Amino acid sequence: MWNNEVNPMKMSRLFGMRIKEDPAEATTASHKFLIRGGYARQVSAGIFTLLPMGKRINDKIEAIIREEMNRVDGQEVLMPVVSPADLWMESGRYETVGAELLRFKDRNDKAMVLNMTHEEACCQIARTEINSYKQLPMMVYQLQTKYRDEARPRAGLLRVREFTMKDAYSFHTTPEDLDQYYWRVHEAYERIFRRVGMTHVVSILSNTGMMGGSVSHEFMLLADCGEDNIFLSPDGKSYKANREVAVSGLKFEKSGEELPLEQVMTPGKKTIEEVGEFLGVSADRTGKAVFYSTDQGELIFVLIRGDFEVNECKLKNAVKANDIKFATDDQIRAIGAVPGYASPVGLKEIPGKCRFIIDPSIAGSSNLVVGANAPDTHYKNFNYGRDLTEGTIVDVACVRPGDPCPVTGEPLVFKHGIEIGNIFQLGLKYSKSMKVNFLDKDGKSKPMWMGCYGIGVGRTLASVIEDNHDDYGPIWPISIAPYHVNLLALQPGKDGVGEKAEEIYQELNKLGIETLYDDRGEKAGFAFNDADLLGIPFRVIVTPKSMAAGVAEVRTRASRDTEMIPLDQVAAVVAEKVRAELAKYAD
Amino acid sequence: MWNNEVNPMKMSRLFGMRIKEDPAEATTASHKFLIRGGYARQVSAGIFTLLPMGKRINDKIEAIIREEMNRVDGQEVLMPVVSPADLWMESGRYETVGAELLRFKDRNDKAMVLNMTHEEACCQIARTEINSYKQLPMMVYQLQTKYRDEARPRAGLLRVREFTMKDAYSFHTTPEDLDQYYWRVHEAYERIFRRVGMTHVVSILSNTGMMGGSVSHEFMLLADCGEDNIFLSPDGKSYKANREVAVSGLKFEKSGEELPLEQVMTPGKKTIEEVGEFLGVSADRTGKAVFYSTDQGELIFVLIRGDFEVNECKLKNAVKANDIKFATDDQIRAIGAVPGYASPVGLKEIPGKCRFIIDPSIAGSSNLVVGANAPDTHYKNFNYGRDLTEGTIVDVACVRPGDPCPVTGEPLVFKHGIEIGNIFQLGLKYSKSMKVNFLDKDGKSKPMWMGCYGIGVGRTLASVIEDNHDDYGPIWPISIAPYHVNLLALQPGKDGVGEKAEEIYQELNKLGIETLYDDRGEKAGFAFNDADLLGIPFRVIVTPKSMAAGVAEVRTRASRDTEMIPLDQVAAVVAEKVRAELAKYAD
Repeated sequence: MWNNEVNPMKMSRLFGMRIKEDPAEATTASHKFLIRGGYARQVSAGIFTLLPMGKRINDKIEAIIREEMNRVDGQEVLMPVVSPADLWMESGRYETVGAELLRFKDRNDKAMVLNMTHEEACCQIARTEINSYKQLPMMVYQLQTKYRDEARPRAGLLRVREFTMKDAYSFHTTPEDLDQYYWRVHEAYERIFRRVGMTHVVSILSNTGMMGGSVSHEFMLLADCGEDNIFLSPDGKSYKANREVAVSGLKFEKSGEELPLEQVMTPGKKTIEEVGEFLGVSADRTGKAVFYSTDQGELIFVLIRGDFEVNECKLKNAVKANDIKFATDDQIRAIGAVPGYASPVGLKEIPGKCRFIIDPSIAGSSNLVVGANAPDTHYKNFNYGRDLTEGTIVDVACVRPGDPCPVTGEPLVFKHGIEIGNIFQLGLKYSKSMKVNFLDKDGKSKPMWMGCYGIGVGRTLASVIEDNHDDYGPIWPISIAPYHVNLLALQPGKDGVGEKAEEIYQELNKLGIETLYDDRGEKAGFAFNDADLLGIPFRVIVTPKSMAAGVAEVRTRASRDTEMIPLDQVAAVVAEKVRAELAKYAD
Repeated sequence: MWNNEVNPMKMSRLFGMRIKEDPAEATTASHKFLIRGGYARQVSAGIFTLLPMGKRINDKIEAIIREEMNRVDGQEVLMPVVSPADLWMESGRYETVGAELLRFKDRNDKAMVLNMTHEEACCQIARTEINSYKQLPMMVYQLQTKYRDEARPRAGLLRVREFTMKDAYSFHTTPEDLDQYYWRVHEAYERIFRRVGMTHVVSILSNTGMMGGSVSHEFMLLADCGEDNIFLSPDGKSYKANREVAVSGLKFEKSGEELPLEQVMTPGKKTIEEVGEFLGVSADRTGKAVFYSTDQGELIFVLIRGDFEVNECKLKNAVKANDIKFATDDQIRAIGAVPGYASPVGLKEIPGKCRFIIDPSIAGSSNLVVGANAPDTHYKNFNYGRDLTEGTIVDVACVRPGDPCPVTGEPLVFKHGIEIGNIFQLGLKYSKSMKVNFLDKDGKSKPMWMGCYGIGVGRTLASVIEDNHDDYGPIWPISIAPYHVNLLALQPGKDGVGEKAEEIYQELNKLGIETLYDDRGEKAGFAFNDADLLGIPFRVIVTPKSMAAGVAEVRTRASRDTEMIPLDQVAAVVAEKVRAELAKYAD
């Protein structure tokens, strides 16, 4: 049903300039090459225009996504960018989501939002279009513009404010059906990222965050420039998790006799390092207090062993807060603790006001040095269970590179990643608040089980560059390359070069090969630099010298291998190469 | 390069319900059927979600538009929905465009807008990507989401707030090149509207409005529900114009002797009708005063013959105002005129404060009755040129049905129309203010001549329904029909009907025919009503009776003609019909 034109292009009329210099603000390969290659232009911070070369790549990525979404029985819809705030109030997210949700009033003074995700809008249609268990499961998806009011957009298309997202929503009668479908989408995502040409993508356990729900995975391209932090088992398979939720296989067991609690003076020693050094114990023999306040105004008193850092994401989940931040000294003093020397010894939890969170590293260690709630004073030989019994024991520690894998026990490996997709088992979160119900076999009304599945198209595009480039430009996988073949005529006015190149161009067009023809007659070095920035898989070069030999040079962008092919065969030979290469990404 | 899947569908799993009753608020066929057929759902006033059936139609319209834009050398880009207000300040439109331009502050307190059109954004890229006359002409286009903060959205997809628009922008070295290209796009538009299946589209002269520029045409679907008012010559070709700018071929010539100006008492008579009746003259022997104030605070005193109405669009253009409204009585009195009895006799224009606009109907008529600037008093025998010499003579009259055509002299015909596309010769308006310059052959920097070209995709979709429907639903032209064939199994559990229908379904899929298979086993009447609402060109019906006769019924949605085709040939026969029908819209 879609436009199927080959739509060839001559560079003399291509819209979008190549640029010689790296843009000053660009720190990643994708940002550099997207600007330098004429794929995209910044309109404002985090807001870009896609130029024709970028748009073609974008469309090919979208086509692959569509194929795979249709393959898992998805049906494409188009929901709006702008929605009434009412819908977000129904789900409760109008209150809980931060400033990244753009809120405004329309000219009739009605509160509206720019949808940054479409659970609400999709629930609104699901509840009118689905009535019966007979219609379930059902999945709808869209490829659509999102706006997220990021405070600090960066890195070109990697972190933006406006972007095209594929978002999908599935509805089910049971959690089992949701789970089964969720893993079908997981497979579809693996196919998508493989087919667009990325080879270093892993799916990892992730935090459900503002989306809610229980199970969730992120698809990460492993890349040094990635903002996300990932822990992997050494085999890269047995365990994979975002640092936000990663757990280690560390076991904490008390050992030896519990010595008597002893108060010691530690004049001027505040940090764990200072106290440890002063008392001659290492950080893992100390306990540190860290204080947070939640958006509900509760003070959270975290006690964690001195050799660990608090994982704020895990802590937020543990205390079920939308947001937490470090407590002020005044807030700490208000519960009777002394900043810098705090410990929960002698203090009590106050329901709704102050809660103790005890990391297992504390609960499973003996004879620790902790604060004594008095200036220049610490306790030695603190033992949880004896010196303190209050508090919730829950893992809120950041995993550290080298900590044992919870599955294999081997040392965990730390990597950076770019999040290019995520999938969520939302469960009943939205169905219940927004009354998305169906009638089951017995005629009883029940809320639907819901999943949602996102892919950032622009971020995928940029990530393909991060995963496929050299010093000179992107190396596009043929499945999403703007063109299959880059035909260059060098000195086109000489010895019939231009005429022959034009002939080859026409032949390639007839063969259905998408060709970008550099007909400009620029110098070889200049033309090759442009060709590198355009990153098209196959290059066909016609020059006076090659004409004399009756051949054209065929060069592969990735390997830089070259071959000389007789002029009368070159179109057919290259077409064959293109088809063979395309077939690798077909499925 | 695009997704080319047939993507068949069974109705048992199709997302989007058919609805039996007309929605209460729907007054047009397209609004009714878009909702009833499960094509679209309202999210908020003027904001819709496209369900799968609507999305498929939308995509086919977009594909046709893309083909035709590529055919006129367009290159597709994607500009953002959100832009910094700076850009609109550069062009000056941040001030001149009204509340329909949604303005907001981002979280860093920067002024932003939701682009309702992209001249500014396109100029921003044109000035960086085009430097030389060698790159011109250049045309870029996009299919993208627009938001226009309409005060009163209505009629389903006909007047909305959020919509997909194809907008294109061309750049040229000379006005002649712009004009030539403009007419190429005009032809492309004619092809587009023909190919999506509309047969009552005309292009008419239109007002350039907030876009600026000189020449402009609107493409109108002639339809009674249309909001636009159009005047056509009887042949439908010689003259076609929007009422906003239409002129008539009326000639006004003074006749007879100019009689002496005479003051008469007209106690209690205020309206033209009352005064005319009282003095025994018809409306065309009177002159009426109409007062406006402009957004620049100027009072406009219009004098026009009593049998004409002021055309506010022509008036706005004549006085070069962004906005005009009726003046208040206080404003009228401030220049010494008397509301209800005003005339310019004895008054003077005040530069920057009060201007006289004299319609030719006044300047070319003799001995008129006009106000005398005193209560209950009029003049007889007013003659412009004698009793008043000030003022600008300019046509600001609404054309009336039956007025002579300015080209043929025959009576003009009045029609309603839906504006589905428009094209503008913008000239240098944006290039100059936004410094979109190129270097000409002599190395001189010059502003580019610019054109812009829009089509509302959703409005086109709705208009196709207005142009193609019966009482039971839309009759989709096959070029944009959601599916080519609607296969129905009636009593699928009986006599192998379901199995045979499934076989035909598979055969049609293999033949590349897009098929929607009604496998639900609903009663015939119910299934046929749904089929009518789905409006698919060909219907193939398998029933126990047809099975017994070894045939399937093939029915055409438009003509309702039916044929009985042997079961083993039906897929091939229908595929042939589909291809023949598709060919009609191919070019």
